[in-house]
Amino acid sequence: MKESLILPDVQLESDSRNIPLDEVGISGFELPLTLCLPDNSRLTVPSVWEAGVRLSESSRGTHMSRFVQILDVFAAKGLKSLDLSSLCAEMAARLDTEAVRVQTCFRYFVRKPSPVSGLSAPSAYGVTVGASMGENSVSAAETTVELSVATANLCPCSKEISDEGAHNQRVLLRVGLELGTQAHLFPFPVLETLIRRLEACGSSELYPLLKRIDEKQVTEQQFANPKFIEDVAREAVEVLRSSSPIRAFSIEAQALESIHAHNAYVRYRQGKAS
Amino acid sequence: MKESLILPDVQLESDSRNIPLDEVGISGFELPLTLCLPDNSRLTVPSVWEAGVRLSESSRGTHMSRFVQILDVFAAKGLKSLDLSSLCAEMAARLDTEAVRVQTCFRYFVRKPSPVSGLSAPSAYGVTVGASMGENSVSAAETTVELSVATANLCPCSKEISDEGAHNQRVLLRVGLELGTQAHLFPFPVLETLIRRLEACGSSELYPLLKRIDEKQVTEQQFANPKFIEDVAREAVEVLRSSSPIRAFSIEAQALESIHAHNAYVRYRQGKAS
Amino acid sequence: MKESLILPDVQLESDSRNIPLDEVGISGFELPLTLCLPDNSRLTVPSVWEAGVRLSESSRGTHMSRFVQILDVFAAKGLKSLDLSSLCAEMAARLDTEAVRVQTCFRYFVRKPSPVSGLSAPSAYGVTVGASMGENSVSAAETTVELSVATANLCPCSKEISDEGAHNQRVLLRVGLELGTQAHLFPFPVLETLIRRLEACGSSELYPLLKRIDEKQVTEQQFANPKFIEDVAREAVEVLRSSSPIRAFSIEAQALESIHAHNAYVRYRQGKAS
Amino acid sequence: MKESLILPDVQLESDSRNIPLDEVGISGFELPLTLCLPDNSRLTVPSVWEAGVRLSESSRGTHMSRFVQILDVFAAKGLKSLDLSSLCAEMAARLDTEAVRVQTCFRYFVRKPSPVSGLSAPSAYGVTVGASMGENSVSAAETTVELSVATANLCPCSKEISDEGAHNQRVLLRVGLELGTQAHLFPFPVLETLIRRLEACGSSELYPLLKRIDEKQVTEQQFANPKFIEDVAREAVEVLRSSSPIRAFSIEAQALESIHAHNAYVRYRQGKAS
Repeated sequence: MKESLILPDVQLESDSRNIPLDEVGISGFELPLTLCLPDNSRLTVPSVWEAGVRLSESSRGTHMSRFVQILDVFAAKGLKSLDLSSLCAEMAARLDTEAVRVQTCFRYFVRKPSPVSGLSAPSAYGVTVGASMGENSVSAAETTVELSVATANLCPCSKEISDEGAHNQRVLLRVGLELGTQAHLFPFPVLETLIRRLEACGSSELYPLLKRIDEKQVTEQQFANPKFIEDVAREAVEVLRSSSPIRAFSIEAQALESIHAHNAYVRYRQGKAS
Repeated sequence: MKESLILPDVQLESDSRNIPLDEVGISGFELPLTLCLPDNSRLTVPSVWEAGVRLSESSRGTHMSRFVQILDVFAAKGLKSLDLSSLCAEMAARLDTEAVRVQTCFRYFVRKPSPVSGLSAPSAYGVTVGASMGENSVSAAETTVELSVATANLCPCSKEISDEGAHNQRVLLRVGLELGTQAHLFPFPVLETLIRRLEACGSSELYPLLKRIDEKQVTEQQFANPKFIEDVAREAVEVLRSSSPIRAFSIEAQALESIHAHNAYVRYRQGKAS
Repeated sequence: MKESLILPDVQLESDSRNIPLDEVGISGFELPLTLCLPDNSRLTVPSVWEAGVRLSESSRGTHMSRFVQILDVFAAKGLKSLDLSSLCAEMAARLDTEAVRVQTCFRYFVRKPSPVSGLSAPSAYGVTVGASMGENSVSAAETTVELSVATANLCPCSKEISDEGAHNQRVLLRVGLELGTQAHLFPFPVLETLIRRLEACGSSELYPLLKRIDEKQVTEQQFANPKFIEDVAREAVEVLRSSSPIRAFSIEAQALESIHAHNAYVRYRQGKAS
Repeated sequence: MKESLILPDVQLESDSRNIPLDEVGISGFELPLTLCLPDNSRLTVPSVWEAGVRLSESSRGTHMSRFVQILDVFAAKGLKSLDLSSLCAEMAARLDTEAVRVQTCFRYFVRKPSPVSGLSAPSAYGVTVGASMGENSVSAAETTVELSVATANLCPCSKEISDEGAHNQRVLLRVGLELGTQAHLFPFPVLETLIRRLEACGSSELYPLLKRIDEKQVTEQQFANPKFIEDVAREAVEVLRSSSPIRAFSIEAQALESIHAHNAYVRYRQGKAS
């Protein structure tokens, strides 16, 4: 039996308020998402999704269950890059709409060697990909990526004014990237290169595994390489300016100060608003 | 002894990378903030602050300790409205900069009567105020307000297709308001009026205290008044369109669905980006 | 070159305060964890770990890097049940200690069919496993499991006193299970059975995917099956009392009330403290 | 008109499952809470409450609205210490029960002078107070307090093995205190003394406001005073052992490592379980 013949479809009612809505959909929806990694292995990670469509001024509601079905099929296929264009196209077709937006966030792991011992362990990063497709899109979605990377800084002022030592701390670096319709040029190896370059903006990188011989190196490198959070952010600006296909981006850096209970931060934006 | 005569000031060094930074400052800084309430009482609430300045391309760093001193003095004075203009002006002067931004978030309480019994109890709302002042500002800051209000909706589709009952749920409504330089026209009584009007966008309001006679009324009102999350959002659009001095705003509504573990959501934006 | 010949090992210093510490280790450590699922597939999920050892009163510190190496090797192997005994044994041996504790949390997915249409989609659950091994342990660790499951309840009072309708809401059910040394009797199929039985404690279950014909059934089932949060908790007590090998357990149920901005909750504990 | 004459009271129904519930009540309930501070000023802070009663095996439900009324009246009165005994007694009487438990959490501010300049600013701490009263209680509630304080540590190993510098970081110290029925001996001045003593367990304290002359002192003090997170925890043990009326307590210390993205932690418990 066909449900639409039997049950009324209240969402299809018209609405008289004459207010189109930018995005209507589901959020906080969790799915296993398969990633095709640079070493050709496949990793299925939990991901949290948000998916919505533009709702015209004449429609009362959208069909939320269709998002679940479309996302479920897509997430199982396997991603080689941060390109969600085919998902956006499917959503637009199935929901008969002029504009869609979708977003997913997940953890991404890179195996990271220690600087002296060479021993390695996994390091985790936060990735959020947003993609949208509008009325006149042909095939590629407008894509934004938010990437969370941790590093460290050692305060130049503290080093300069103190007889010995200098305070240092963990730094949370969050960058927003606008890839335009070029997300297919952003496969996972490019993401990993960017992660490495951003980690290197600190006084030293962080490592999951440090033997004493590594800890000595990291401590001395931080002390030899003092940077304000402003310096860390400016180095990240230079990294992102030189990274294709990124043309617009934003940066937020937070230093979890070891002399205060509050943080020091920097924000920077280049190009159009994310 | 005067510290600046003794200790070098590394922040004052020049920077050769030629990159001005949009915002440099402190975040996660907690302060007691005094509010002058509509009933003329004063309430001091914990608040979390972020305060930053634009850093010119030629300066290496800013002086973070000055933010703490300026915010501390300001927060103790007592706010009658969401206007942080005098704080912005003070920051610009003391930090000798062309552009500043400050943000604070806190809980705001309104005593709310139950619909039938008339008994009352406090209801809590989230308020975040952001203010910025730029190069050519004279006296008033550009102000944005984010307000978090909870309400409820009862699904019209569920009611229509089911022989009995209908699923309903808590709705989180978050609105972003752009007050331009008119924050002084937004004292706390105006905020409270807006809160009441936004709560009324649901199938019924939520209440901190409901006796059985109230619960009967709320249940029946929700059932008589079914609304999709899209309907709730459209009513909020109408509320905000008719609220002076708000000209640009954004809305995010999340329904904590009682038939799914995920949410339904709507986003809407009118006017320039917040 | 052997690092211990070169660099002093400050952790090995003795401590004169005569205070043994219950647990010393690392927390917030993220790793890809491989699960061997009931359908014989393998799923690698991000997991967050905490691992510690008892520190005797005579030792100043422990060797934190060893935890990273041991966890990394273990997590890659593949778990068939919630048994972390071999990990605990390895930790005890490598860190030369009398007592160890380890904890991991991750998301677990079960594909869930809708009640009428039979369509299915993944549903996510929270799992936290803690295992400890003490001085006289032979081979099995004492294991606790915390499981987070969402369901729904429809208020019997609201239904009874109202002419039409009844408020209902999402319920978060969190159960703590004490498996003693029997975690090997708790493979993933047993976990999935328990999840299904706990979801069934609500007025109806939640589903990731509901077509209108399903939504009608869920709405009507909730209305026909009103339960206080107290009723939901008592049904969960009966489920856990009848589940082998669980002998001690705790329950916390939170109803995200659709008539209040606060929650209703129940706590229950049976057997020894978790 | 009297509501109980009109509307049925479903909560009063009997339950046949023979399962008493430890705690049934409301959670996430926000209220303005007035504190009577050591300087005789009054500060009203937002607080989040949880309040429940034991439910006998023969009762189906409790009356949740009564909690709201009782908490509202109590929170407005003004607390001079962490003693919630009168609140517990009121709850037991009004809800006609043998056992009650209540918990509140809020931010507490202490004005803190910088070490050299003597300038001061507010510093914030987290306080959670839990109180319970059972069948045979006369007048005083069993009280537990959880206190969150931030400090810093500088790694002795890093200092020892490195030619220059040493990594340091923010430390989050959370202590659980069991005051038995002696909460009236724990007024806010005693809380403030304990906060100061716990902050002093680090390599140095944290400060909200540091001028360069202060930052020099803090940096040098940290470097002269290296402590593992184990050392910080052991000093906290000594502080709590010598603090009346605390006889049982637990400690959790987390160091936000500046060389790793994960933390180092210690847990310790003395006396009966919290």
